[in-house]
Amino acid sequence: MRKKSLISIRDLDKRDIENYLKLAERYENHFTKEKIGKVLATLFFEPSTRTNLSFQTSAKRLGIDTLNWNVQFSSTQKGESFEDTVKIVSGYADILVIRHPLEGAARFASEVQDKPVINAGDGANQHPTQTLLDLYTIKKYKQKIENVNITLLGDLKYARAMKSLIYGLAMFGANITLVSPKGLEMDSYVIREVKEKFSANIIEQNVIDLSGTDVLYLCRIQKERFSDPYEAEKIQKEFRVNMDYLKKAKDDLIIMHPLPKVDEVPKEVDKLKNAIYFSQAKNGVPVRMAVISDLLGLGD
Amino acid sequence: MRKKSLISIRDLDKRDIENYLKLAERYENHFTKEKIGKVLATLFFEPSTRTNLSFQTSAKRLGIDTLNWNVQFSSTQKGESFEDTVKIVSGYADILVIRHPLEGAARFASEVQDKPVINAGDGANQHPTQTLLDLYTIKKYKQKIENVNITLLGDLKYARAMKSLIYGLAMFGANITLVSPKGLEMDSYVIREVKEKFSANIIEQNVIDLSGTDVLYLCRIQKERFSDPYEAEKIQKEFRVNMDYLKKAKDDLIIMHPLPKVDEVPKEVDKLKNAIYFSQAKNGVPVRMAVISDLLGLGD
Amino acid sequence: MRKKSLISIRDLDKRDIENYLKLAERYENHFTKEKIGKVLATLFFEPSTRTNLSFQTSAKRLGIDTLNWNVQFSSTQKGESFEDTVKIVSGYADILVIRHPLEGAARFASEVQDKPVINAGDGANQHPTQTLLDLYTIKKYKQKIENVNITLLGDLKYARAMKSLIYGLAMFGANITLVSPKGLEMDSYVIREVKEKFSANIIEQNVIDLSGTDVLYLCRIQKERFSDPYEAEKIQKEFRVNMDYLKKAKDDLIIMHPLPKVDEVPKEVDKLKNAIYFSQAKNGVPVRMAVISDLLGLGD
Repeated sequence: MRKKSLISIRDLDKRDIENYLKLAERYENHFTKEKIGKVLATLFFEPSTRTNLSFQTSAKRLGIDTLNWNVQFSSTQKGESFEDTVKIVSGYADILVIRHPLEGAARFASEVQDKPVINAGDGANQHPTQTLLDLYTIKKYKQKIENVNITLLGDLKYARAMKSLIYGLAMFGANITLVSPKGLEMDSYVIREVKEKFSANIIEQNVIDLSGTDVLYLCRIQKERFSDPYEAEKIQKEFRVNMDYLKKAKDDLIIMHPLPKVDEVPKEVDKLKNAIYFSQAKNGVPVRMAVISDLLGLGD
Repeated sequence: MRKKSLISIRDLDKRDIENYLKLAERYENHFTKEKIGKVLATLFFEPSTRTNLSFQTSAKRLGIDTLNWNVQFSSTQKGESFEDTVKIVSGYADILVIRHPLEGAARFASEVQDKPVINAGDGANQHPTQTLLDLYTIKKYKQKIENVNITLLGDLKYARAMKSLIYGLAMFGANITLVSPKGLEMDSYVIREVKEKFSANIIEQNVIDLSGTDVLYLCRIQKERFSDPYEAEKIQKEFRVNMDYLKKAKDDLIIMHPLPKVDEVPKEVDKLKNAIYFSQAKNGVPVRMAVISDLLGLGD
Repeated sequence: MRKKSLISIRDLDKRDIENYLKLAERYENHFTKEKIGKVLATLFFEPSTRTNLSFQTSAKRLGIDTLNWNVQFSSTQKGESFEDTVKIVSGYADILVIRHPLEGAARFASEVQDKPVINAGDGANQHPTQTLLDLYTIKKYKQKIENVNITLLGDLKYARAMKSLIYGLAMFGANITLVSPKGLEMDSYVIREVKEKFSANIIEQNVIDLSGTDVLYLCRIQKERFSDPYEAEKIQKEFRVNMDYLKKAKDDLIIMHPLPKVDEVPKEVDKLKNAIYFSQAKNGVPVRMAVISDLLGLGD
């Protein structure tokens, strides 16, 4: 395949993704012991230590050196433009990983210089390696994605991970159930798009019924979106996964979460063998190795 | 030996420590030129750059890649639990080095996931690699620890390093003299414990007399512990080591300090060949190499 | 050559600099794939991510591991002296790169311990690797420095880079034109020094005329130096490079800038092939590799 940059999950077709997942599988226990003479720079314009460390780990396991542009201490504070920062770091590194609060920042960065760029999250927009690791995790536990029954539960309106994920799931033919509180439903244009493009099988519910579900994907209800804190509290309680809901679930249900989680997952759930979100986070390493490897042409 | 984690000096017996000191000696000038395919993560929930860099140096000299979890910018601020942070990093790294303001944090971290943990300081509790490097330094300069006369001088009540150190010294049969201002004495239960356990030879004094001392170990009087600043000032002057005290000392006295020091050590003392605290800090590198190497089973 | 430390451009003679430039040329595309068993520490007491990353990249491409002393989180806040910090880090690393707001800090650091020190900027004083990369860039584009016509434009009084640069340019026999607003002229003692020492050909102007210029070197007008903001605004407009000035310039004029730039360079200039400041920044990597390599005796 050999892409130039990875900015959006929409840049990839089904075959690209399958290739990444296969490559990631090969990288699961791989650790290159020699430096290969390349440098990866992470430029994080908002904090996300987890994602940053995951990319650094991936780079190091490929024998690639890393540089971290610590935006808090950088010339950005002296008024340097984002474009200038990107161009300077592009002079030091062979590939850039960028996280930025503004939508479109990563795309822009890929256009003003000639090194590959990986989008590690631009505002509420895209975070394609998160979607890849989610798909990788589902396939690892369910051996396939097609026809797997997946419930996305929580705030589907504002959670960044969800818009990319539904696109990827639909592309692979999963059966998708959306459950969210009133007002926090997935945007209808997103649902329309994936239905048209992939004839996706999507059901919307506002009650939690996990009886037929293979994969439960949780995301946080963002209390700060509500004007009435009592209302927020009430809704969060209602849409919090709990042991009662889980009693009716399949034995081999897996529970996923993009992390970090706060109080939307009760302590008891953490202890279930079904809760696999820490393995899911760990899968970010081989998946990101696959993407970096492809963008740098390491397998060529 | 091969320990699972290193949380407290109490986890080690005399033989374990002797093995670490021997291994450290072998690592003094060692630098592995190939990456060995391992990652060490430092998670510092309070700042201690010196300790952090010492661990990173040790890792790199063993051919181990490092990751630094910068707590100031992490998801911890978004409300993620310490347990979740530890579990996530455990998915990226092969060994974790943790510093945390709360006692017991490192022990807890070693129990919620299966990678080895090194305690780099948990509150006022333990900092076992500091004790190991202190013992290593004494042995290096005095060829033994048994029957060496050691004076611990300063605030022995609040200084973290001291409670671990007295335990290690007693285990090796050093003769220990404790000198501290009134109210800042070593807790009596600590003295009782090491006397019972190791039949330790411990004398408590409140005047400084260095005539028979081989090793003077200094620690800071923490002025913030006093309600009366004049009283603090007065005591600090009295218990500050000075050239008059040192005149009566043996020629080959060594002066140690856990660092950082502020104004408890006069400039003139810095220049004495007896002041070996910078070498002592440097000894942290081979000692930590020994611990990391053992916990990762590198010698197996 | 093999210097002990690099503190000031004045520590180097013409031959030293020529050797560094030649060595840098050899390092342009060099990347050592094995670790060579050395550690470089960056100690930045004021933020300069660009310079810091440039040094880290250089080190990594030489197979040298890096440590970053993050002053914001360090024991310096607990009151540790600069001298102590330097001595401690000197115990971990083989070479120190120091940036500090106070003049003379790097020189002092080189005197209190025995590892080589590279000055990465001490207050308004020296930043010798910046001058080396500037000279390297001029030579790369103009094949020589002697008799090249160079215009230094902007605030020549406060900009750190300029005082070192004029010294280096004069040493190599460039023809230097200084253009600055009234009150922001280069200090007369600097001009006198380089005229006496190198019989330098220096012209001072207060209008911008680029007709005979081969190299235009820009630096920011620091508005905060003016008591009257309207005056500052007016002067900045007047002394801002613009397309009108550039129309009269030679086709192969190169425009240099130490970066970061803010609004002293219009967007249109960025797009000109003459604007080579991002290549200039990139040249910092091989130049710093040359300096590090020499100070560590890697070629010996």
